[in-house]
Amino acid sequence: MLIRTHVGVSLDGFVATPDGLPAWDAIPTFGPGSHGTAELAEQCGAVVMGRTSFDQGFQDWLADWPWPDKQVYVLTSRPLPANVPAGVIASTGGPAALVEQLRDAGLAQDVHLLGGPRIIQVLLELGAIDRLGICVLPVLLGTGIPLFAIEPTAYSSDAWAASLTSTSKSAAHPLLQLDSQQVFPDGAVQLVYRPSA
Amino acid sequence: MLIRTHVGVSLDGFVATPDGLPAWDAIPTFGPGSHGTAELAEQCGAVVMGRTSFDQGFQDWLADWPWPDKQVYVLTSRPLPANVPAGVIASTGGPAALVEQLRDAGLAQDVHLLGGPRIIQVLLELGAIDRLGICVLPVLLGTGIPLFAIEPTAYSSDAWAASLTSTSKSAAHPLLQLDSQQVFPDGAVQLVYRPSA
Repeated sequence: MLIRTHVGVSLDGFVATPDGLPAWDAIPTFGPGSHGTAELAEQCGAVVMGRTSFDQGFQDWLADWPWPDKQVYVLTSRPLPANVPAGVIASTGGPAALVEQLRDAGLAQDVHLLGGPRIIQVLLELGAIDRLGICVLPVLLGTGIPLFAIEPTAYSSDAWAASLTSTSKSAAHPLLQLDSQQVFPDGAVQLVYRPSA
Repeated sequence: MLIRTHVGVSLDGFVATPDGLPAWDAIPTFGPGSHGTAELAEQCGAVVMGRTSFDQGFQDWLADWPWPDKQVYVLTSRPLPANVPAGVIASTGGPAALVEQLRDAGLAQDVHLLGGPRIIQVLLELGAIDRLGICVLPVLLGTGIPLFAIEPTAYSSDAWAASLTSTSKSAAHPLLQLDSQQVFPDGAVQLVYRPSA
């Protein structure tokens, strides 16, 4: 069982606009099953999301539940609504307990970690993401909700000068391993990484 | 004559650490001529950079000038040092005048827009970049100097709710056209886009 993401990200790093509209929606060729999502759905027996994503989507999903044959785990500290469909599981023990829960569930197939960014970031930090799949979309959003927990800085000639005279080196950053890549006709590029253990 | 970038960018969008060390340096397999830089050098008869990049690199470059057979344009409002090698041209009229200068120079080959991020951003806004080449490096830096002028926001359920009841749609974002892509053995992925006109 592998925990996989498959996140549509604008070329400048956003999964959504400031309004919360998915970056996918900026691509007119995105639709049900497109961009590898059909293959992912076949590959995965469970879906995991954070509570924010659940709350954002729930009313829409209720009309035509997208995962009738899958278990859906929601990481949350609050009770779920009473009308959740069968197969929806509140995971209330925190991120590490969620990962343990998934590993212990005896799932025959993989797990699709849907998002949002916060649960992806925390599972990435825990080393729990087996395949970090990103679909780089050929669009610049400029502003929005970033996939990664980033802290942009400005160039500083003082910092540069200090780095030249410093004997300490910046911490080495572990490399990710590119597992596969696929180019779609519309120019979206799927990159799947194995994060370092 | 095409104006081209070839920028190494971490998977989370940074061209450099907060100290100004290039993201390329996080990749042990990066070296002279690697990752398409040799092909780019053959393709380009001129190099363009901003004044910050020039000031950052100049002392290092002087010892063994990297572009003996190319014209080097520096976008700047201040005079260059007296000891710049022949072929270095101060472009003092601003970004639009720089682009005109390049288009009028009768260059037989392409132009390598080296950076930094600010001159790339402003030339992109001017529609002057013919090939936006990005090499996505398999590393997460977390913090640093981003390639794009981004404004990260947090998810807001209020903004989402407002977007649902609003009749106005978010402005459509123009798509870029993927021109070519190449995967390197170390997992770096070069993506070259034609920005929309």
